[in-house]
Formats: sequence, structure tokens, C-alpha cells
Amino acid sequence: MAVIESVRWSPDAAAVRIIDQTQLPDRFIERDLESLDDVCTAIATLAVRGAPAIGVAGAMGLVVSVLPHALDTRDRFDARMQSHAERIRATRPTAVNLSHALDRLLARARGTSGSPSDVIAAMRDEATLLLEEDRSMCRRIGEHGVTLIPDGATVLTHCNAGALATTGIGTALAPIYRSHELGRRVHVYVDETRPLLQGSRLTAWELTRAGIPCTVIADSAAAGFMRAGRIDLCFVGADRIAANGDVANKIGTYAIALAAQHHGIPFYVAAPSSTLDPAVPNGDVIPIERRSREELARLRDVRLTPDAAGVDNPAFDVTPAEMVTSIVTDRGVFSRPYRFRELDTTRARQARPRSSVFDPATP
Amino acid sequence: MAVIESVRWSPDAAAVRIIDQTQLPDRFIERDLESLDDVCTAIATLAVRGAPAIGVAGAMGLVVSVLPHALDTRDRFDARMQSHAERIRATRPTAVNLSHALDRLLARARGTSGSPSDVIAAMRDEATLLLEEDRSMCRRIGEHGVTLIPDGATVLTHCNAGALATTGIGTALAPIYRSHELGRRVHVYVDETRPLLQGSRLTAWELTRAGIPCTVIADSAAAGFMRAGRIDLCFVGADRIAANGDVANKIGTYAIALAAQHHGIPFYVAAPSSTLDPAVPNGDVIPIERRSREELARLRDVRLTPDAAGVDNPAFDVTPAEMVTSIVTDRGVFSRPYRFRELDTTRARQARPRSSVFDPATP
Repeated sequence: MAVIESVRWSPDAAAVRIIDQTQLPDRFIERDLESLDDVCTAIATLAVRGAPAIGVAGAMGLVVSVLPHALDTRDRFDARMQSHAERIRATRPTAVNLSHALDRLLARARGTSGSPSDVIAAMRDEATLLLEEDRSMCRRIGEHGVTLIPDGATVLTHCNAGALATTGIGTALAPIYRSHELGRRVHVYVDETRPLLQGSRLTAWELTRAGIPCTVIADSAAAGFMRAGRIDLCFVGADRIAANGDVANKIGTYAIALAAQHHGIPFYVAAPSSTLDPAVPNGDVIPIERRSREELARLRDVRLTPDAAGVDNPAFDVTPAEMVTSIVTDRGVFSRPYRFRELDTTRARQARPRSSVFDPATP
Repeated sequence: MAVIESVRWSPDAAAVRIIDQTQLPDRFIERDLESLDDVCTAIATLAVRGAPAIGVAGAMGLVVSVLPHALDTRDRFDARMQSHAERIRATRPTAVNLSHALDRLLARARGTSGSPSDVIAAMRDEATLLLEEDRSMCRRIGEHGVTLIPDGATVLTHCNAGALATTGIGTALAPIYRSHELGRRVHVYVDETRPLLQGSRLTAWELTRAGIPCTVIADSAAAGFMRAGRIDLCFVGADRIAANGDVANKIGTYAIALAAQHHGIPFYVAAPSSTLDPAVPNGDVIPIERRSREELARLRDVRLTPDAAGVDNPAFDVTPAEMVTSIVTDRGVFSRPYRFRELDTTRARQARPRSSVFDPATP
């Protein structure tokens, strides 16, 4: 199956090759990020987006950014690498994956003796490992999730939690790609996902490119499609999952969960286990980012609402655990009641080994 | 209160003066429709829109269109008037109000003896009567509906069922305008209403112009705002109401009703009693118009989804009567169980008098 690769090395590994998502769906353009400026601009402008993809692209970008400095003294090289990492980290301060990925590269560099060239080689290995881990995380979510999708199913999804948001086959879309690979028939209903339209712009683009039939609908139409019997199940991603199973995800996710519950339609969340945050007891504690009025009030140069009107633009909402049928992670499928405790959720934390208890009710 | 007038006579009554809604919210432009072509183009391009407003504008436009023919023979005048009416009727074949309004003018003309000038005078009177009836219908909805809005309430609305959709203070917005007139504090949350954005473009514009505070939100955010306790009640319009109280209205209405029910928030529908269709037993029989993919797939010249993706764009959905707290009409507030039977719903029908029974459970 021709799933696109949103982030990879250029053939000579001297650049990070990305799909420029600002050009989609109009143009499919791959760009090589060859410098610190290239990397920072690509992340800041959302040319590369999606927490897992940003983490990997940032780590690979750090390697690329220090290539011209292989002949520096080790001290000067280390200082420069640190300052590059901080500049990349600052591009998306809230994306925790980016910070974790950069920390892993810096730790690997500190643990490597020898010349800057030796350090660069080790960092490149570590960045490649991150890339492969992310791909394999997606694969495992796909393997676990595909068991939930019967042949001929219609699946509703929201936003983009697909190949464009990761370096693999996505999270929420991974079970759908896997289903398609297995030759099962699947049809995807794609919420357009206002205000930034990640559904119509990105999810519809990557699904059609993979040959998976899909239909874009207005976000507000999803409940009516459920009532009409057009949706068999829902698969969405997650930005953060609390210890009790409450799910923070793109605005609109809660409305879908509510309608799914009313119509007795399974509502599945797919996410890397690193998204589980045992430090957050429940969803009400998760801070909800408010984004700019311009996202709703304008589309490029077209004004959509008068300046005198207020606009409230929360980027996420919280879906209570009791509305989530199952949570599909790379470690398996978990069902209610969710009790995610003491979970080692990140590689950064895995550097400090401790007793890890993954405590689902239904492992 | 400075509520705008979407349709009225020009000062010399030789033209229909409308607010050009294609220019909102960027520009507030009033245009005088002075010919048959002007009238047809304005309705077809949605410069004037909203079933009640279209009916009145079409009737007034018919009068304007025959003014140059006052010196014709009566026979020639009658034939011309009939052909003009058919051209106007064809601009929006599904808007039943337009057809009813034109029929009323034609009946009035037929019932008028004398010269074309006499007929024109009678038609002008009839069109003015239609205008005044529509305004007074809005007022009555406002009077009945305002009893449901406590001081300090936050009200969610969807689409535009306001002054721009009628010649008065609207239907769903009438109780809000009335509440504001009475000096009560009211804050309106406005769903942007994809795909055509009647909420952010039109409702937000007319509310801010009237000095009523409002906040535009993404359609998919409404459920989350209810969960957060930010919405006290909902007021939406209706395109058709079945005999059992099922409500066909703008796509997305059902999702709001579902979320309102879940959160115990009153969900009110406001509509002229002519919207009640006793011939339709329930909402499942109401045909749902599918509109063009371009409404979702493009915004002006910006492509929002790839051409290879399917798009499904139903313009309306049906909200079951059991989710509707009350239906507010010009004849009063009705509550479940709804039994709208044998109702004389239109002026056209009122021309053939018969026994009318308005059979609500709670009159």
C-alpha cells in the first residue's frame, strides 16, 4: 500500500525530507530541510505537523543542523548543538513529543565520546531509531485496532491522526490502513474539522492517495449520518489521555462521542501509549488551549464574521471516559473502566527505569 | 432598537429595497430592485434569502416588475403579469413561501376589476399586507418566545433565522431581540454554520448591529460549551415541522438538540405557524435536499479538499419531536406531545376556509 511518508531522510541523509502540508490538498510538494532555519520554519508554519511527526522531524532536523560543524572542537560543537536544540524546541512549545525527542538526542550526544563526527553519527542513529519507533508504534496500533473493524464497515474520523501526523500509518487511521491492506472493504466518513480543516484538507488527501474511499462531511452533519445508520464506528486520535481514561482531542470530538453513545455506535480512541498521562487524574484538569479568533473569523483573505462579534476558539475538548468504548494503543486495546497508573509513558522517563504498571481493566 | 430591514419599499415605492446579503459581513449595501431581472437575480444569488423574506420580496418584486406596463390593455397586462410571476417563482423552486406569496398577488389581481393601474394599486396593497403580516408574525413569535428567556441567559443559535431571513425581527432571533428591547441581559452563542456560514456571516452581523453581544463558535464546539455550563438554552428556526412535531432545519440542528438533551438544556424551535405541515406525519418523510459538493469543497477560489474525495452535503436534518422542548409560533408556545393536525397553515389555504384545529397538548 502506497502510504505517504511525511518525514524521512533525504537519499544522502544530509536533509530531512518532508511533505509540505501547507500546500495540501492543492499541491503535493516534498521539501528538503537542510539547515536550522529550514527546520524551525517548517515546524512553526505547520509544513510538518502532528505531535509524533514533529518530534521525529525536530530530532532529525537537529542532526542536519549540526552537519556543517563536524570540524569544530568538541566543546564548541556541544555548545552549538545545545543552542540549536533550544531553537527547535521553542517552535512549538506545547508539543511535548518534540521536547522529549530533542532530549533523547542530547542525552545520546552526551553519552558519546570522541570527535563531533562520532557524535553526529550517534545522533543520526538515535534520530533514525526515533523514526523507526514511531513507525512501529503506528503499525502496532494498526494491528490492535484492525480487530475492531469488520469487513464493509463505515468509519467516522475527525481531524487528522494519520500518516501526515506521524512518520508511519498514523494512529486513528492506522487500523483503517491495516484493514485496507488486508483487503477488507472500508469507507471513511471524514469530518472536515473546522476551523483548520485538517479533515478535508489532510485526511481526505492521504486516504484518497492510498486508494481508500472516503466522504467529507460537515462536522455538524455527523450526528445526522449516525441517525441515518450510515456510520458503523468512530476512530479518533488523542492529544492527551488522563489516568481515568478521559480523552482530550481536537474540538468536536466530544460532540461525536455524544452522538455515538446516543446511537449505540462504538467510539474508539487510538493513540501512542506516550499519550497516556498518569499524572493527570481526569480530563477536567487538562488545560484547553484557546487559539486565535482569526482561525474562525477568516479564511486566507476572506472575512467570515464581523470584527465586532466575539469569537471563542478552543482547540480541544474533553470526552469523558464513560463515552469511550475502547482505547487502542501500541500496547493493546483497553476498555472501561480505564485505570492508567504509574505508566512509563515516554522514552525520556524510560531513561530512569522504575516499576511500570499499566493497569487496564481489560488488558 | 435598530433592527435592520432586509426587505422594504423604496421611498417612492417604485423599487424593492433590500440588504445585499452576498456582501455581508464585509459591506452593508442596500440595493433597489427596479426590474424583473433585478428581482430574479437578487433571489437566485441569495442577495435576499430566508423563506419568509423571499416570499415578501418576490411579491413586492412582481409589483415593481409590472409598473412599466400600466398603460397596456388589461389582457396584455394580465398575461405579462402571469409570465413575470412564473419567472420569479422559478428562481427558488423549493421555497414554498415564494410560491404562496405570488399566488396571493395573482388571486388579488384576478379579483380586481378595472385598468392595469387599478390592478397595480391592489397588488401593491396586497404585497404591503404580506410584508406587514410577516413583520407581525415575527413580533408575535418574539412576544411568545421571550417568556422562555430569563434575564442574563446565554442562548445558542444555529444558522440565520433572524431579521435577515424575514422582513421583521426574525423567528429564532425574535425572542432574543424582544428580550434585548425589554432591557434584559442576553448573550448569544452563534454556531458559524458550515458550509455556508450563515451564523458567522449573517447572524453575528445583525446581532452586533443591534447591540446584542454575541460569540461565534465552531459548530462542533457547541456540545463542549454545553458541557462547560456556558449555554442556558437553545433557539433555532425550522424549515418544516411535521404533524408529530419532528423538525427539519439546517444541517447541524439535530446534533445541537442531542447535546442539549444530554445536558438537560432547553431546546426551543421558533417558526411561523405556516411552517407546520400537517400533511407530513413525521420527519422521516421529509425529503432532505442534497446540495453541491462545492459548498464544502471550496471557499471562493480556495480548494479545501481533493477532487478525488467524495463529499456529502445534506442541507437539512431532522430533529425528533421528543428532543424539542417547545415550539414557539406566532400562535403561541406548544409543548410535547405535539399533535399538529388539520391546521390551516397558509394564507393560500385560508382563501378556502374550513374548520381549523390547532391541536397542541399544551396550548
